[in-house]
Amino acid sequence: MNPIFEHRSIRNFLQKPIPESVLDKIIEGASRASNTGNMQLYSIIITKDKQRKAELCARGHFNQKMVEEAPVILTFCADLHRFSYWCSLRNAEPGYDNFSSFYTATIDAIIAAQNACIVAESEGLGICYLGTTNYCTDAIIDILKLPKLVFPVTTVVMGYPAETPEITDRLPLRAISHKETYQDFSEKEISDLYSEKEASELYKQFVEESNVNNLAEVFTKKRYTTATNKSISKSLLKIMQSQNFMNND
Amino acid sequence: MNPIFEHRSIRNFLQKPIPESVLDKIIEGASRASNTGNMQLYSIIITKDKQRKAELCARGHFNQKMVEEAPVILTFCADLHRFSYWCSLRNAEPGYDNFSSFYTATIDAIIAAQNACIVAESEGLGICYLGTTNYCTDAIIDILKLPKLVFPVTTVVMGYPAETPEITDRLPLRAISHKETYQDFSEKEISDLYSEKEASELYKQFVEESNVNNLAEVFTKKRYTTATNKSISKSLLKIMQSQNFMNND
Repeated sequence: MNPIFEHRSIRNFLQKPIPESVLDKIIEGASRASNTGNMQLYSIIITKDKQRKAELCARGHFNQKMVEEAPVILTFCADLHRFSYWCSLRNAEPGYDNFSSFYTATIDAIIAAQNACIVAESEGLGICYLGTTNYCTDAIIDILKLPKLVFPVTTVVMGYPAETPEITDRLPLRAISHKETYQDFSEKEISDLYSEKEASELYKQFVEESNVNNLAEVFTKKRYTTATNKSISKSLLKIMQSQNFMNND
Repeated sequence: MNPIFEHRSIRNFLQKPIPESVLDKIIEGASRASNTGNMQLYSIIITKDKQRKAELCARGHFNQKMVEEAPVILTFCADLHRFSYWCSLRNAEPGYDNFSSFYTATIDAIIAAQNACIVAESEGLGICYLGTTNYCTDAIIDILKLPKLVFPVTTVVMGYPAETPEITDRLPLRAISHKETYQDFSEKEISDLYSEKEASELYKQFVEESNVNNLAEVFTKKRYTTATNKSISKSLLKIMQSQNFMNND
């Protein structure tokens, strides 16, 4: 069975270590990923130390306990440092301290991350991506001692699953795929696409718990608010600057 | 066999269409991907029309002939439009016209893209990612009629392979993985990591063809120059602005 169709995020793990041979296979799977010009502009930080996981958990990921409990935390970074260092040593002047290099490396880091996740799931492990990487970027850079030209893009916790949650819902495929050109939606089409989600017991519970009028407001008023998004935007752009990725002129 | 370990980019395709059932499975695989808050902030544009492929090839991808010849072109887009539209229809004010939303959606689009690629490869298809998506973003937005809040992140050509290239080299795993924290390299370590690549016949040929002094200069002087990177950086940031993704204040 292809693990892609069986994927669910796992947030509770057995206290069972991941064998080194399995971890090596996961990193090797990441390394096989398509990437720009075969420059491999990414790095993976493997955290297993209890105290460092606790620090990542507290300062880097809003105290989500899975960061402490998972045996392995992988932080996938856009990395222009290693490549630029090599260029410099060969008297070739590297020009990778800019947004397009950052963006390219972000894309490469994520392709590698998803390869790692699929290999992990093929090996019976469970994984969960942590969006908090983009919220606490500064702290993660500090804890993992990332040099300039390295930027943490996403984090994956992994381990043997201690739970088997249901596979989560998705929008109908016609919501995410367009034939030939972007086919914009009518109001009725949008309502149809989201109707199943809005009618589900799970999401009705979210609305009730959030004390808002409807599911859309769970997102706009509680989970991903304008104020938070703007604040994170400014923070990300500032850290891109301080990590030397915004020398565009 | 896990297709991840057999991956090579395919640039020559048989003139054999991809069955609709296979294409549906690929899109479904994409939709199963991990994503932020289950908002599915991405869209996939499926191009099969001969004339539109020719246009994408000429204006969007520097005339790389595989774009005309592959039976299917998938353009993966960060899409905050559909979600924002739904919010608006529910009287929930969307605040997703900013960099952090763009960045989140980029990450989600790429995870979905890699799922699609792995499902495609599991089905016997070959794929190739096109970095040119970030070079000709304006033209792609125009050809695919992408509305504001939609941004093409990457493109994948796919079809039945008409070639079986060798699996390409990668750096040793110790180049891309770090234990606990980023372990910066000594000059000797960097040289060791790149020595196999620099010694290979393939890369020696690159150096000769490029008429430069060494492999690093193939990248810095020919393939990814400072001037091009800065120019693409400015272009990307400008298009992010014009697609309404930079309302950060």
